[in-house]
Amino acid sequence: MTYCVAMSLEKGLVFAADSRTNAGVDQIATFRKLHKFMIDGERSIVILSAGNLATTQSVISLLNMRLNSDQPNLFGARSMYEVATIVGSTCREVIRRDAGQSQGNVDFGSSFIVGGQLHGERHRLFQIYPEGNFIESTPDTPYFQIGEIKYGKPILDRVVDYQLPLKDAAKCALISLDSTIRSNLSVGLPLDVLIYKSGSFDLSNHHDVTNEDSNFRALGEAWSQGLREAFAQLPDVEWE
Amino acid sequence: MTYCVAMSLEKGLVFAADSRTNAGVDQIATFRKLHKFMIDGERSIVILSAGNLATTQSVISLLNMRLNSDQPNLFGARSMYEVATIVGSTCREVIRRDAGQSQGNVDFGSSFIVGGQLHGERHRLFQIYPEGNFIESTPDTPYFQIGEIKYGKPILDRVVDYQLPLKDAAKCALISLDSTIRSNLSVGLPLDVLIYKSGSFDLSNHHDVTNEDSNFRALGEAWSQGLREAFAQLPDVEWE
Repeated sequence: MTYCVAMSLEKGLVFAADSRTNAGVDQIATFRKLHKFMIDGERSIVILSAGNLATTQSVISLLNMRLNSDQPNLFGARSMYEVATIVGSTCREVIRRDAGQSQGNVDFGSSFIVGGQLHGERHRLFQIYPEGNFIESTPDTPYFQIGEIKYGKPILDRVVDYQLPLKDAAKCALISLDSTIRSNLSVGLPLDVLIYKSGSFDLSNHHDVTNEDSNFRALGEAWSQGLREAFAQLPDVEWE
Repeated sequence: MTYCVAMSLEKGLVFAADSRTNAGVDQIATFRKLHKFMIDGERSIVILSAGNLATTQSVISLLNMRLNSDQPNLFGARSMYEVATIVGSTCREVIRRDAGQSQGNVDFGSSFIVGGQLHGERHRLFQIYPEGNFIESTPDTPYFQIGEIKYGKPILDRVVDYQLPLKDAAKCALISLDSTIRSNLSVGLPLDVLIYKSGSFDLSNHHDVTNEDSNFRALGEAWSQGLREAFAQLPDVEWE
């Protein structure tokens, strides 16, 4: 499985993804699920992927191969909306090609989160379904998740709002990933975390969080400790 | 959907269940999922159910109808292990009967958590799969969940251990349900919560938690507040 989360907030975007893939418990591997496409000062695009690894890899490969081609492509798109349509149609194309010759009961589906900014537009965030259609985030619903989403959702539901500072949003994404990793074997380190400040056209605030990352370890320990303290301070339930 | 959780701890058992059932979002109803079978001073049995409502209701009806019959039944069983086998075989029987004439792609499966105590035995807890086979809890893994289990699992993974006092365990079960209710529409109030003290053969510590329950509201608010405070106190992530 996989777990990816992204938020579109007042000040910019936050992306976070694990890197574990698995086909059964004895076929576990590390594949990055955060992909960047950029032209300095002009466009910054980040794509997170989940689902069938063959499909997601093909989609990302085709998007890369076509960057400077005559086909609709991420460097030619004139809006983030157009970027989302290109990712969606590429996903449909790959699934049509591969699923047409399916021999068994394989799920070829993949989901994507696509976010970024093009010069002249504000930053935007989209979730793309396996069918290639998509939705865009709004201030009311400023985050999207794909993959193994349930374990890490309660903390997002309680903490994330549109005004949340980017630094806190990144912390919240890490906590959401930490909760998922603790409860589900199919999500694992290292993590990719990227913080994009609106208008900066800079995708370099991108961090590789490994098991040795003292920031992540300290955060996880502080969160466990904080949860236990919050639990210890709960009022007693006084039923008659 | 449904969410049920039960724990078998040093001092006894804790059971908690929501009461929402749904077949699509426009067919929502309230059905209790906690069922009690008892003979004073001799046996106390609690069954939680999740899955296909027709199947779970039939299983509980048959278990009740057979209580004083010649067939294997919960009042005649000589151990909690035998109780689990009877619930399992009744589940198999109902699914065999109903699924045999299935016209469509219906999932007839149900899961059960069965816990309690028979005179002469310690208290025990079992999880029964739709296939009728089952597993028993141990001090290493003292809790079972059925239904919509993921949202409420992180708090259990962090707080529940075999030595946890029953009062705290009930609080933890309520928090786990509260987290699930906030993130998933298919799980809803009222809740059933039952605390069983080992050796008591008393199932009367059973509470109906409605939306008006001030204990539950206070607990939910204190937990939200505690989580936000724990989040606010997290160390800053200092990436270079």
